[in-house]
Order: sequence, then C-alpha cells, then structure tokens
Amino acid sequence: MDREALANLAMTDDQFDSQLADCAVETQTFLAAHIATLAAPERLLAAMAHGALDGGKRLRPFLVRLSASLLDVPHEKSLAAGAALEMVHSYSLVHDDLPDMDNDELRRGKPTVWKAFDPALAILAGDALLTEAFALLSDPRTHPDPAIRAELVLTLANAAGPTGMVGGQVLDIEGETTVLDEDAIFQMQAKKTGALIRAGVEMGAILANATPAQRAELIRFGTAAGLAFQIADDILDVTATSDALGKTAGKDVAQNKSTIVARRGVEEARAVLNRAVADGLEALEDFGGEANLLRRLIGHFAERKS
Amino acid sequence: MDREALANLAMTDDQFDSQLADCAVETQTFLAAHIATLAAPERLLAAMAHGALDGGKRLRPFLVRLSASLLDVPHEKSLAAGAALEMVHSYSLVHDDLPDMDNDELRRGKPTVWKAFDPALAILAGDALLTEAFALLSDPRTHPDPAIRAELVLTLANAAGPTGMVGGQVLDIEGETTVLDEDAIFQMQAKKTGALIRAGVEMGAILANATPAQRAELIRFGTAAGLAFQIADDILDVTATSDALGKTAGKDVAQNKSTIVARRGVEEARAVLNRAVADGLEALEDFGGEANLLRRLIGHFAERKS
Repeated sequence: MDREALANLAMTDDQFDSQLADCAVETQTFLAAHIATLAAPERLLAAMAHGALDGGKRLRPFLVRLSASLLDVPHEKSLAAGAALEMVHSYSLVHDDLPDMDNDELRRGKPTVWKAFDPALAILAGDALLTEAFALLSDPRTHPDPAIRAELVLTLANAAGPTGMVGGQVLDIEGETTVLDEDAIFQMQAKKTGALIRAGVEMGAILANATPAQRAELIRFGTAAGLAFQIADDILDVTATSDALGKTAGKDVAQNKSTIVARRGVEEARAVLNRAVADGLEALEDFGGEANLLRRLIGHFAERKS
Repeated sequence: MDREALANLAMTDDQFDSQLADCAVETQTFLAAHIATLAAPERLLAAMAHGALDGGKRLRPFLVRLSASLLDVPHEKSLAAGAALEMVHSYSLVHDDLPDMDNDELRRGKPTVWKAFDPALAILAGDALLTEAFALLSDPRTHPDPAIRAELVLTLANAAGPTGMVGGQVLDIEGETTVLDEDAIFQMQAKKTGALIRAGVEMGAILANATPAQRAELIRFGTAAGLAFQIADDILDVTATSDALGKTAGKDVAQNKSTIVARRGVEEARAVLNRAVADGLEALEDFGGEANLLRRLIGHFAERKS
C-alpha cells in the first residue's frame, strides 16, 4: 500500500484527528486525576504534573488504544496502561532536559521541569513518574488478570530500561563524540525512540490476549512505526523552526548527533522513512478495515509537522 | 524483650554475621551475573555495576530472605526479589549523590558513580537500575505465579515512588529550609528510609504467600526496623568518622537536615531507637525461634557502627 492508497482509506482527516484528540483528552484526565490522588508532597506532585500534563499528542497511549481496540478491547480498558506508558515517556523527557543532560529550557512551549522548579526536584519527579508507572501497571484496577499485569510490567520495563530506551540514550550520547556507522545509528534509534513505540503496540496486544501470530504482526508494525517516527523527527529537526516544534530546533546538528539525516541528507532519509511506512502497512495486511486507524497513524508519523 | 534478652538469643554473633555475609555474597553474585547478561552499552553496564556492586551489607535483600524463610521459602527462591530491591536502593544512592542533589564524591569508600563516570551517565545508570528492578520482579524466573510477581511489583513501586521513598526525599530536602515538627520528621524518615526496609519484609511475606495476619505482623516489624535503622543512621552521622562510615560524616548538620537527633539530641534519640527495637520484637511475638535472625537484625540496626 503506497501513500496514495493510504490517503484513500475510508476515513477523513477529521475522523482521525478527533480520535487522536479524544485519546489525548482521556489520557490527560486520567493522569491528572491519578497524580492528584497520590499521598505525596505538593511540590513533587506539581513537578510530576508539570512534566506529564498539558503536553504532546499522547501518541503512545493512542498506540496502546488502537492496538488493543483492534482486538476488541474497549477504550476504557486500555486507558491506564496507555497512561503508564505516557508517564515513562514523560519521565524520560524530564531527565533528558536536565542541565547535566541536554540542558534544555523549553519543552512543548513551556519551561522544562528543572527550569520551572529546580534540577534536584526534576530528577526526583522523573524518578517518581517512572516508578509510579509500574505501580499503575501492577494495580488490579488496570487489569483483573495478574498474568496480564505482570506481562505489561515486563514489556514496559524491557522497553524502557538498559536494553531499551536508556541504552539508546547512552548510545545517542556516545554518537556525539564517536562516528557511528549506519547499523549503529539504526540500533540506537530503535532503542532510544523505537522501543517505547513498539511497547505501546505490544501492550495493546497483551491487554487483548492476542494470539502469538497477531502479537508478532503488531510488534512488526510497532517496530516500523518507531523507525518512521524517529526519522520524521530527525528530518523536522533540520527543516522546522523552534516555534513550530515547541522545542529547540537544530539541536542534532548543534550537538553533533548521529542521525540518518546527518549521514545521508534529507532526501535519502525520506526514502528510508517511506520504506518504514510501507513495511508497517504490510505488517497489518492480515487485519481488515478495523486497522485503518493504525494505518493512518503511521502515515501521520511520516507526515507530521511537529 | 529488652536488649539483654536480645543478647541471649540462642545464636552467636558469628552465626548472625555468617548468615548476613552469605546473603551479601549471593546477592552480589546474582547482581553481577544479571547485569553482565544485559544487551546494553558497555559504559552503561559499567556504571550500573559501579552503583550496585561491591557495596554495603545488603541488609535489604537479607530482610527479604529472612522474612521469606521464616515462612519456609528456601533462600534461592527469594534471591531475585532481594536483588531487585537492592537495585532500587542502589539507584536511589546513585541519584542522591549527583551534583544537583547531595553533590557527594565518596560512597562506601569509592568515588560515586557521577564522579567515576559523569553526571549524565549517573542519571541514566540510576534510571536503568530502577527500571531493571521491575523487569526482574516481573520475570517468570523470579516466581512462577504471576499474581505474586504483580504484587511484588506493586509493593516495591509503592514503597519506592512518590508516596514512598521519593516523596520522603522531597520532604527531606524541604526540611533543610523549613522547620519540620517531630511528626513531619517521623513521616519523612518513614518514607525516605523506612519504606524500602518495610517493603523488604513485605516482599518476603508475599513470596511466602503469608496469611494476612502474618503479613500484618511482618509489616509492623518492618516499620519498626526502618525507624530503628534511620535513627541509628542519624546518630552515627554525628558520632562516627567519615572513615568508619565509608561516606561523609556530619552531613546532616552541614546540610541543616531535620532529624530527631538535631531536634532532641543523641540521648533522647537513643531512647526512641530503643522503643522502636522493642516494638519490632513485640511484632514477632507470635513467631518462634525461627524468627531469631530477624530479632538479631533489628538489634544489629540499633547497634551498628557504619
């Protein structure tokens, strides 16, 4: 299926946008309520809320929702798992922005957590968001079956930890001073950004008790979607403005990051992006029209402007 | 039971010390092997190992072991859960030592992780240890029953997160600039140090499928042990040397920390400590001689020199 076919899916942009916005609102509401109920110091809760609320399109919870609902899990049953994934994504941004890391003062058009509070509280608020994500996943209210809860924890921890996202962040930092070959760049990106995106799709499959075949196809889709997302991000970093992004543009070049764009230029990077989209669509071939939202989502990743 | 009775338990110091050392060695071996098998960047694994290995008496894994074996769980079946708890404790030290936090260069007689590597890697290594702890607890090899795995995750996440340890750290920082009343000091200490110690005892009870009554008694013991541990630590901070501690002594006074010692002096703090020990021993009254190691452990907390 090519881009034209993608555009012809029986779904308008408005329909897609409204589904995405609906998930974002529900995730936001869930996270705000969850954080507010925690018996914790006010300043910590304020810093956690600053890091986790009012930001982003909630693409990762949307992946959990779409993957789960593809296999007939109603939206409200995948909300907590999506929120836990978003907490892990948010913690990673809070720590990434720290003075000792990227030293970023702006995120989603707002001061970063360390800038709005202080670096010590930003470290602790990130730690708290990460830890609370696992408390949420292992809570019986998230799913009545403990086997599913334990598997959600294992999947997210593997995606977020040293073999996943954190490992990718270390490779990314090493790529600033070492020349990474293309394989190493793809591996770094698959871990740094791809792992959580793939985990979102896989967590949906776990919630739905998917067959091994369905789960494998969804994981393949998630892997392709993660790659598409990261390359689109790298392209935006060199083509968009900070205002459009709501964060500092041109950072990759300034920090000498190893990206496919830096290695091969924008046009060739777009070709890699298009192949990732095609691969993701192929992975969904055995699913019918009910997978159209996932198909649109990978197109959305490829075409996004921020 | 008073201190004299404690000293008369049918167990020599050597027996206690050898059990504690045995658990420390097995935990160390387990952690070293586990970290070495992770498919992650070498520098990240080195920083994680620096933060988690060759340090401390492994009191928290010992609590998991003693609590579990009190209810007939063999040592090898509680090792992974104890190691996961120790990874969380280790991550908290790695982050605590950061320049933006306590700015400590010495820990257990070695350079801290940020000093041996750099602050960015120390942040990421801490994040990795925390995340990997939950991967370990949710791994089927840790316990075959998913309900027990999910409950271990929930218990540790609640103890470590915003309502537990991280919340306590925020209160501790606030106590440097605000005058905390005694209730607030006890609450802060119960969260900052007490929560993980209590979690250790509770995780043992979970592994053993304890009855609600047994679990409640063990939690009461763990709460008392956590208080005894923290007050002994506060007393040592003013009475011991940095050499003896393997970390900087006199920090609480230098940082204007709110402690019971600062509020009431060493002698009254010792009286609170003694009451905590008595309460912990009372909680074990329904257990027989098989709880003697736990009884000795709370005495060890009270008497420790480092």
